[in-house]
Amino acid sequence: MTITVYGSKISTYTLRVLVTLSELDVRDYKWAPVNMAAPVKEHHSHEFKSNLQPFGQVPVMHDDDCDLTLFESRAIARYLAEKFHSQGTPLLGTTPREKALVNQWIEVESQNFNKPVGQILLHTVFSKNYGITGSPEVVEENLEKLEKVLDVYEAHLARSKYLAGDFFSLADLHHLPATNLLIDVAKKGHVFESRPHVSSWWKSISSRPAFRDCLAFQKSPGP
Amino acid sequence: MTITVYGSKISTYTLRVLVTLSELDVRDYKWAPVNMAAPVKEHHSHEFKSNLQPFGQVPVMHDDDCDLTLFESRAIARYLAEKFHSQGTPLLGTTPREKALVNQWIEVESQNFNKPVGQILLHTVFSKNYGITGSPEVVEENLEKLEKVLDVYEAHLARSKYLAGDFFSLADLHHLPATNLLIDVAKKGHVFESRPHVSSWWKSISSRPAFRDCLAFQKSPGP
Ligand SMILES: N[C@@H](CCC(=O)N[C@@H](CS)C(=O)NCC(=O)O)C(=O)O
Ligand SMILES: N[C@@H](CCC(=O)N[C@@H](CS)C(=O)NCC(=O)O)C(=O)O
Repeated sequence: MTITVYGSKISTYTLRVLVTLSELDVRDYKWAPVNMAAPVKEHHSHEFKSNLQPFGQVPVMHDDDCDLTLFESRAIARYLAEKFHSQGTPLLGTTPREKALVNQWIEVESQNFNKPVGQILLHTVFSKNYGITGSPEVVEENLEKLEKVLDVYEAHLARSKYLAGDFFSLADLHHLPATNLLIDVAKKGHVFESRPHVSSWWKSISSRPAFRDCLAFQKSPGP
Repeated sequence: MTITVYGSKISTYTLRVLVTLSELDVRDYKWAPVNMAAPVKEHHSHEFKSNLQPFGQVPVMHDDDCDLTLFESRAIARYLAEKFHSQGTPLLGTTPREKALVNQWIEVESQNFNKPVGQILLHTVFSKNYGITGSPEVVEENLEKLEKVLDVYEAHLARSKYLAGDFFSLADLHHLPATNLLIDVAKKGHVFESRPHVSSWWKSISSRPAFRDCLAFQKSPGP
């Protein structure tokens, strides 16, 4: 059994997959770094697009067991959580009701949270990587959108320890890499800190050993 | 057992849930129309937001069986496909490999396809509903993005009958309502027709009885 993860340490989407593996206590996977830096841009090569990810993005996962090449970070995380459901942290809920709520909040992250966050990161942390000039107006506009989303989170987390209930799940996990960057590098922590329930949720999920391990891996030498 | 669907006939996200029910041969659900027209805007009411959908959007589903209120169209569709897996069309794949590929293409729709399509529809069909002036530049820019996505679909569908393999799945289904509007109302059919494999995939999925039934329901009198 070999799981290979193709990705980049600077990619939040790649990190999402690595945190999932870490929560599931899967340690013996193969790390295949993709050189995304210009002028190499391995992910834009014909080979990468035809064998691994047709849209030219990371992450990609390969599982020897069923000769499966899979892309899209949330689909990879779900696959791993199902495959390794009997080890580490259960990430998808147990009853149909719990599973449904995990899926609901996975969608909220993907549809409501990730959009403004992605724009803020693109116009701050990642502007150089994508060759654009960061626009403070775009950042401001998207911070406002994010604050509206976080108001809903605040009301919800006043009644619920984690997003899908009283258990940590993939729905919480999916927020980790980008939020960490938003706070640590883009310095937008105030939108989380000013909301007490969001703030303690963030403290609780970001201090999990699985995530700290991934941040340590990210800072380790080598690609 | 009662499933209630709160939504609007003009909402593509609502239609996604109705097509899922129809493919699963669930006929005895309750339809609860939400009046989204100004000045009523029922979905923006305090009651709607605190009891049904905190972001003030449709669709929402309620299942009496486990007293579950669920929002986010793709999470609802997944819940229904799992609950009624033994009737109608199997929508999620059977082997872990098939399931993984269904999830991958569900994500491609959500992350790559839906974004440009949503912008095109917002600036053509729905501009009045959202009180904006449709911008031809935004439409043009997003058509270009959509064409790049469809180029990947074209290459993929040359080797695969449906998105996740040789079986119809939720991944295909999720494309139906918005694409139909894009072709029939926004008149952007040429981007599909000019790609032979995309075009025959579209003919095949859009002619399914479950979808035709939903379009008939949409055109029927009453909210
Ligand atoms: N929806 C994809 C998004 C992946 C993505 O945007 N990856 C970025 C790195 S974080 C990338 O590869 N960007 C390169 C590009 O788009 O050219 C997923 O969830 O895996
Ligand atoms: N991500 C949501 C999106 C739902 C959505 O955008 N619904 C639209 C109608 S198609 C809506 O309620 N719009 C009203 C609004 O946003 O104010 C889902 O998939 O259910």
